[in-house]
Amino acid sequence: MTNKKEISAGIIIIGNEVLSGRTKDINTSTLAKWLNKLGIEVKEVRIVPDDEIAIIHTVNFLRERFNYIFTTGGIGPTHDDITAESISKAFKLDYGFHKEAFSILEKYYKPGEFNEGRQKMAKMPTTAKLILNPTSGAPGFYVQNVFCLPGVPSILQSMIGGLNNILTGGDPILNKTINLRTVESEIAKSITEIQKNNIDVEIGSYPFFRAGKLGVSIVVRSPNKEKIDVCEAEILQFVKSKGIEIVEDV
Amino acid sequence: MTNKKEISAGIIIIGNEVLSGRTKDINTSTLAKWLNKLGIEVKEVRIVPDDEIAIIHTVNFLRERFNYIFTTGGIGPTHDDITAESISKAFKLDYGFHKEAFSILEKYYKPGEFNEGRQKMAKMPTTAKLILNPTSGAPGFYVQNVFCLPGVPSILQSMIGGLNNILTGGDPILNKTINLRTVESEIAKSITEIQKNNIDVEIGSYPFFRAGKLGVSIVVRSPNKEKIDVCEAEILQFVKSKGIEIVEDV
Repeated sequence: MTNKKEISAGIIIIGNEVLSGRTKDINTSTLAKWLNKLGIEVKEVRIVPDDEIAIIHTVNFLRERFNYIFTTGGIGPTHDDITAESISKAFKLDYGFHKEAFSILEKYYKPGEFNEGRQKMAKMPTTAKLILNPTSGAPGFYVQNVFCLPGVPSILQSMIGGLNNILTGGDPILNKTINLRTVESEIAKSITEIQKNNIDVEIGSYPFFRAGKLGVSIVVRSPNKEKIDVCEAEILQFVKSKGIEIVEDV
Repeated sequence: MTNKKEISAGIIIIGNEVLSGRTKDINTSTLAKWLNKLGIEVKEVRIVPDDEIAIIHTVNFLRERFNYIFTTGGIGPTHDDITAESISKAFKLDYGFHKEAFSILEKYYKPGEFNEGRQKMAKMPTTAKLILNPTSGAPGFYVQNVFCLPGVPSILQSMIGGLNNILTGGDPILNKTINLRTVESEIAKSITEIQKNNIDVEIGSYPFFRAGKLGVSIVVRSPNKEKIDVCEAEILQFVKSKGIEIVEDV
């Protein structure tokens, strides 16, 4: 099995409401799971404030480092929505009404309802490409490798499918989870050895606590299914030899 | 009212399980709310993999920029727990058994149960100061302005109170929320003007959708209660003049 080139992504969550703790970010998880299936691995996430300099600096730094960048938040109609203008400045592009976006929104709203606030959602880098929004009209957009999505999780979720044919992924990152009725410290030494024997897979160990009982999830990740299978077999052999219970349903 | 110096914090979430989307980070929200009460404002969050170079680079960059840094994750007993060793390298400090941590853990476990995996949790920068863990024994630690906490949310939550007297905060960041039965685009223009009149407070606008109805939460934040009150009065005046319904319980 030939490995394709590794394809990486960075995520930039834009919003004071996440930094203040008021809102818990769930878009990272949605984006990461979707990107994994496309063979794109999220390497870093940054949560930054609604601050133009912070956004420009972060976008310009990360877009050089990773194949794809996804931003969430800050593309709505209010004064604290400054992502589109910041992205324009990051790329030194004109910020203004995007003809196609304006036309989409004009048709979306009833006559007389396409007010100044709503028109703002058509302002972006004028040469950007659009990401269509089947939920609430206002499109996202992308410039080169930077894809700008909204912060509302249900709307973001409805839009990402439209990018499946635009992004070029590598081999999908596969994973296998084995849930054990044990504690991490009982298996740490053996799992360390198994990791050393299987350097091309990534083994993660995550304690869980459910229905009043402790356990550990062992997660094996790799784009190579055969290597996952070999590693899984080693883990199962060790688990059997120690008499550790496997939990089917966590 | 005299403003104290602004006190800033950065958070570093360490863990492949968050980047892969398997685990949703909720520690950022816990830490941010707690820090706000102490008058410490979270300015940036970075989520990085279980990778020594990424951790060292991120810690060393952010600890120069912000007053306090909090890391979560990677201080358990398994091979993928590399935070303590990475922090030692970031500060160029000896990594080894911390006498006090070793002693705490030795007493915590029953005779014969303090195995190699558990002993690893006593390894850290040997000169670090400890953050006691009332839930599960294994302490966190801090070096200068970098505080290392576990990733398991309930354990982290139980430990942070122990730092209240160690951190030096500024004025607590106060906030006031007004929930409106409207949509953002209807109020965007007026809220923009109110923000311009009140440059020392931060006004955030966040759409919500609950019980089948749309609404917008307007959040006013500042360390200065009087300025929040003035701004709130302006918002309420505008809301009344437009006949927008205030939603008491969202």
